[in-house]
Amino acid sequence: MIKYAIVGTGGLGGYYGGRLADSGQEVYFLLHKDYQEVSRRQTLIVDSVKGDFVLQSPHIYRDSKEMPVCDVVLVCMKTCNNHLLPEILSPIVHPGSVVVLVQNGLRLEEELAEKMPHQALAGATAFICSYRVGAGHIRHDAYGELNLAPFRDCPQDVLHQVCADLEAAGVPTHFEPDLHALRWKKLVWNIPYNGLTVILNAKTDRLTFEPAARDLVCRLMREVVEAAAASGVQIPSDYIGKMLDLTEKMTPYWPSMRLDYDARRPMEVRTMYSNPIQEARENGYEMKMTEVMEKQLLFLGNY
Amino acid sequence: MIKYAIVGTGGLGGYYGGRLADSGQEVYFLLHKDYQEVSRRQTLIVDSVKGDFVLQSPHIYRDSKEMPVCDVVLVCMKTCNNHLLPEILSPIVHPGSVVVLVQNGLRLEEELAEKMPHQALAGATAFICSYRVGAGHIRHDAYGELNLAPFRDCPQDVLHQVCADLEAAGVPTHFEPDLHALRWKKLVWNIPYNGLTVILNAKTDRLTFEPAARDLVCRLMREVVEAAAASGVQIPSDYIGKMLDLTEKMTPYWPSMRLDYDARRPMEVRTMYSNPIQEARENGYEMKMTEVMEKQLLFLGNY
Repeated sequence: MIKYAIVGTGGLGGYYGGRLADSGQEVYFLLHKDYQEVSRRQTLIVDSVKGDFVLQSPHIYRDSKEMPVCDVVLVCMKTCNNHLLPEILSPIVHPGSVVVLVQNGLRLEEELAEKMPHQALAGATAFICSYRVGAGHIRHDAYGELNLAPFRDCPQDVLHQVCADLEAAGVPTHFEPDLHALRWKKLVWNIPYNGLTVILNAKTDRLTFEPAARDLVCRLMREVVEAAAASGVQIPSDYIGKMLDLTEKMTPYWPSMRLDYDARRPMEVRTMYSNPIQEARENGYEMKMTEVMEKQLLFLGNY
Repeated sequence: MIKYAIVGTGGLGGYYGGRLADSGQEVYFLLHKDYQEVSRRQTLIVDSVKGDFVLQSPHIYRDSKEMPVCDVVLVCMKTCNNHLLPEILSPIVHPGSVVVLVQNGLRLEEELAEKMPHQALAGATAFICSYRVGAGHIRHDAYGELNLAPFRDCPQDVLHQVCADLEAAGVPTHFEPDLHALRWKKLVWNIPYNGLTVILNAKTDRLTFEPAARDLVCRLMREVVEAAAASGVQIPSDYIGKMLDLTEKMTPYWPSMRLDYDARRPMEVRTMYSNPIQEARENGYEMKMTEVMEKQLLFLGNY
C-alpha cells in the first residue's frame, strides 16, 4: 500500500488527501497556519457535492521533519512557495518516491528538477471548484477530476496506482502521457479566469455570460492555444468551447487567485502568466494579451 | 470679432470658453444639467493654477435653438453624445462657421462629416488637467495647451484667429497641419492612462512610478505608436519619453474616463479604443494589448 504525504492541506490537498484517507489509504498531512486549530479539534472536515465526510484524528504535522518517509507526495500548496520545496520534501522522500505537483502554471517540474535532480517528479492539474472555508475545513462545490502526468523518467506504475487509489476513493482521474500538454491545456482556463476575476472583480458567471468579458475570455483562450502550438502542444480546436460550456454550468465561483488577492496573499502570477509568456517568446510567439493581464496582476498584487 | 459657441461647459469648455470670455471675447455657452444652477447664480467660476477668475452673467443657454448663430463652435462635450451633434449644431452655424471638436479619440470628424457634409470642421486636443467640481465651477490643475488642426478643406485663417484669441486669453496653442497625426499622438497618452486609472483604480502617479504599471503604460504607448505608423502617422521616437516625463511632473490625477466611471456615466470607449483598433486593423496592425483594455472597459462600463 502506498504511503501518501499531502503538502499543503487547503482546497486541493484537504479534498484529495481527505478522500484518500476516507477510503482507507495511509495519508500524512502537512499543515502550516492551520496546524494548531486542527490539532486541537482532531478532525478534517470536507463538505462536498459528492458527499460530506469528516476524518477523525487525521495524521497531521506542522513540520515535514516529523513526518514518515512516504511513497507519493502530493504537493498541493501554492507555487509562490515552491522555492521552499527542496527543504520540505527531503525528509519525506526515499529513492523510489514520486513527488506530484498538483499545481497551476508552467515549468514547475523543470524548476524543481534543477534543485532536486534525482527526484522522480510528476505533475497534476485539478479541474475542481474547492476551497478552504476554515482551518481543516474544505468546501467542494463542483467537478473534481485530477489529471496526472509523469515528468521525464518518472516511474509510471506508481502514477497508475495513484490513479487507481483515487478512483477507489471516488475521485475521477485521467492519466495523461504528456505533462507539457497537460500544463498548457490547464492554462487555457486559468489565464483568462484567474486573472479576470481579480482585475474585473467578477465571478466566473459574469465573465462567461456578459458579452464583452466573454469576448475577452475567448480571445485570451485563443492566444493560449496559439502559444501552446508555438511551444509544440496541439490543443484540439473544440477545447475552448468545452471550457466555456463547463464554466457556464459552474456555480459562480471565485478562483484561487481571487481568494489570494482578497486575503492579500501573493498571487501565482509568475508560474501562471510569466512562465508561459516566457516559454512562448522563446518559441517565437508573443502573448501580448496575456502580458497585459500579467502586468495588471503584478501591479494589483503589490499590496 | 469671432462669435464663439461652447457646446458642453465642463472641464474643457468651462475653462477655454471661460478664458476667452474673460479676455473680452463674445462667448455663448450651452449647458445641459448645470443650466438651472448657473442661471440662478449667474457666474462661471474657474479656479486655475494660471489665475482664478469668475465670469459675471455669462451668456448661458440650455437649448442651442435659443443661441445666436456663431462663427466658431468649440465642441467640448464627451464623444458618447456625438450622435446628437447635428441637431445641436444646426441652429448655431452659418455657411462660414467652423466647428472644432475639442475631444478625444479617432474618426470624430469623419463621423460628423458624414452627417454634416457641408460643415467646415476642425479638431483639437487639449493637454490639460481640468475638471468640473460643481455646476459652472471648473478646477484647472496643470498644463492647458490646446492643439488645433483643420479637417479636410476647413478654412485655416479662422483657425489661426482662434489660436490668436486663445493666446491673447492666456491659453498656449499650437497649430498642427495634420489632424490625423494630432489625434493619434493624443492617443499615446489617452489609451494607457484613461483606461488604466479605471481598471487598476490608480491615479496617474502610481501608474507612472510603480514598475509593473509603468512597464504596461510603456508597452501600450509603443503599441499606439506602431498602430499610428501602420496608419501612416510617424510619431517621433522620443515622444513616449516626453509623455512619461510630463506625467511624472503632474499632480496625481484622475483622467476624464475615471470621473465618468465613478459617476456611472458612459465612458468614451468607442472613440478612444474601438476606433483606433479598427483603423489599425484596416491597415494590417492588430492592437492586441489595447483590445484587452477595450474589452475590460466595456465590461466595467456596463453598469
